[in-house]
Amino acid sequence: MRIAIIGMGLIGTSLGMALRSANEHESLLGALHITGYDADQRATSAAHGRLAIDKPARSLPAAVQDAQLIILATPVQTIRDILEQLAPLLGPGSIVTDTASTKARICAWARELLPAGVDFVGGHPMAGKEQAGPQAADADLFRGSIYCLVPAPEARPQAVDTMQALVLTAGARPYYIDADEHDAYVAGISHLPFLLSRVLVAVTSRSPAWKEMAPLAASGFRDVSRLASGDPVMHRDICMTNRTALLRWIDETIALLSELRSHLDQQDADQLTQLFQATRQQREAWLHSQPHLRPGEEQVTALPPAPRRGLFGFLWPPGSKDKH
Amino acid sequence: MRIAIIGMGLIGTSLGMALRSANEHESLLGALHITGYDADQRATSAAHGRLAIDKPARSLPAAVQDAQLIILATPVQTIRDILEQLAPLLGPGSIVTDTASTKARICAWARELLPAGVDFVGGHPMAGKEQAGPQAADADLFRGSIYCLVPAPEARPQAVDTMQALVLTAGARPYYIDADEHDAYVAGISHLPFLLSRVLVAVTSRSPAWKEMAPLAASGFRDVSRLASGDPVMHRDICMTNRTALLRWIDETIALLSELRSHLDQQDADQLTQLFQATRQQREAWLHSQPHLRPGEEQVTALPPAPRRGLFGFLWPPGSKDKH
Repeated sequence: MRIAIIGMGLIGTSLGMALRSANEHESLLGALHITGYDADQRATSAAHGRLAIDKPARSLPAAVQDAQLIILATPVQTIRDILEQLAPLLGPGSIVTDTASTKARICAWARELLPAGVDFVGGHPMAGKEQAGPQAADADLFRGSIYCLVPAPEARPQAVDTMQALVLTAGARPYYIDADEHDAYVAGISHLPFLLSRVLVAVTSRSPAWKEMAPLAASGFRDVSRLASGDPVMHRDICMTNRTALLRWIDETIALLSELRSHLDQQDADQLTQLFQATRQQREAWLHSQPHLRPGEEQVTALPPAPRRGLFGFLWPPGSKDKH
Repeated sequence: MRIAIIGMGLIGTSLGMALRSANEHESLLGALHITGYDADQRATSAAHGRLAIDKPARSLPAAVQDAQLIILATPVQTIRDILEQLAPLLGPGSIVTDTASTKARICAWARELLPAGVDFVGGHPMAGKEQAGPQAADADLFRGSIYCLVPAPEARPQAVDTMQALVLTAGARPYYIDADEHDAYVAGISHLPFLLSRVLVAVTSRSPAWKEMAPLAASGFRDVSRLASGDPVMHRDICMTNRTALLRWIDETIALLSELRSHLDQQDADQLTQLFQATRQQREAWLHSQPHLRPGEEQVTALPPAPRRGLFGFLWPPGSKDKH
């Protein structure tokens, strides 16, 4: 299988490393040949140096020539542009996927721009770290994590099976989901967290007392603020392509903070206790469900093999099969 | 030195373990004998089993009998009550300290309730974890972390020196600070973070889609929500005793979230980029300053030994000496 990875940042490089370090005899994709390309040639060289790719390419056309599977691991906002450039270069039967944090916008671009016969299966690995670039890449970044797959309605079953095999080869777990659902959910559990991290850093660090406060900040501050160290451009792009869902979560957050403020103002200790107990319980329940049993996993055994998805197939959420 | 620790939770037990595991010849306090007491006898037994104390006591009077230094490591709201009970039991020259997360209220109680001749030096170790109880205790919990000291204005220099020796023996670093400053600062870098963690968990988990969202939540959610697993009673007590400062930080947070919401609503990518770049830079600067050089440390060498604080003394913030 000939793969092209476009974008040699943290995700693209980590994915290349994960795929290339998988045992070729055990890999569900068989022998792999990976070409890599980044607009920044230093990134391509760094990824090559880290053994993430077999061959560095010097241009987008050179990278995708003969590729059966093209993985777009660039910032969200550049994907439209790249899809436009790719369209005339791809033959029928090739598969295109991406790794971006929002899906609805990207699926719409793929539908609009890719020629018939090219299968698009959107992807989003639920893994990352605050450092960016090929230097931060890690072959184990995806191990055990959920990897969302959002097949275009017209994508052939073989394309979906190939993507699923890729996800499993990288050590992750496929999780089929609708693009709009995906965007609404990740806005809450992934994008709202980075906004809160940034808001925490912004309100504390702009205080006139920050210089005196900073040395007191300990592990709690470090963890809650961790995502503020994330890539500003990636976070901006996520905000711009997932605006509606994020606005809703921000409104919910402001409403709850105002509620909490009024409990505190009225010295309503009971309300505070109740909120604090409930949130502890919810988080513990979530932690407890990780990583043992994810909803998708239960279904591997509960469902007969789904021909639409091939032998490894499972669907989530239940009943969502018709959507894809 | 005979020490009594009242409250065998995470902090009390960890402190006992840290002090008892320090080499007695290197310890600045000399040989130690630690008595422990908790209203819950199982906690006292557990702490004894973990070698945090030499002797379990069955009552508060028994615990503090002959003690030269009494450490109150109970929830904030019980401290007033314990100070009342302690007052008739303590002889002149004994030292009382606490480990609570807020200081102004507690210093006022100590001033009101402790008899003349008993020295109060408030304390707050800037370390912790989300698990509670003696089972979660760790002899290295304080290693390398900042330990705030808030001496009462009338505390004798020897009492302050003793507390400083205790902090250093536990592996932490003394940081002298005024009670009101302390409370305003920690409200921002320690209490606001746990409120944001709880708000994140509350808004996401009360969504009708939570069951489908939860499996997608990954390491970002885990870290930003970590403090939501903290002790609800401790957090409530912190809120109730540090209300004014916290209200101000909540207002700042709501204001900034609203600002951010409006940038997003107006698709103002530049404003978002600017905010995201600034917060990344601020957090990286903070990380970079940790743990190499804390402001207090610079002064160890920069200042001549301060007789008021003894040989190990240093002051922070600069010029704050007169306040204590």
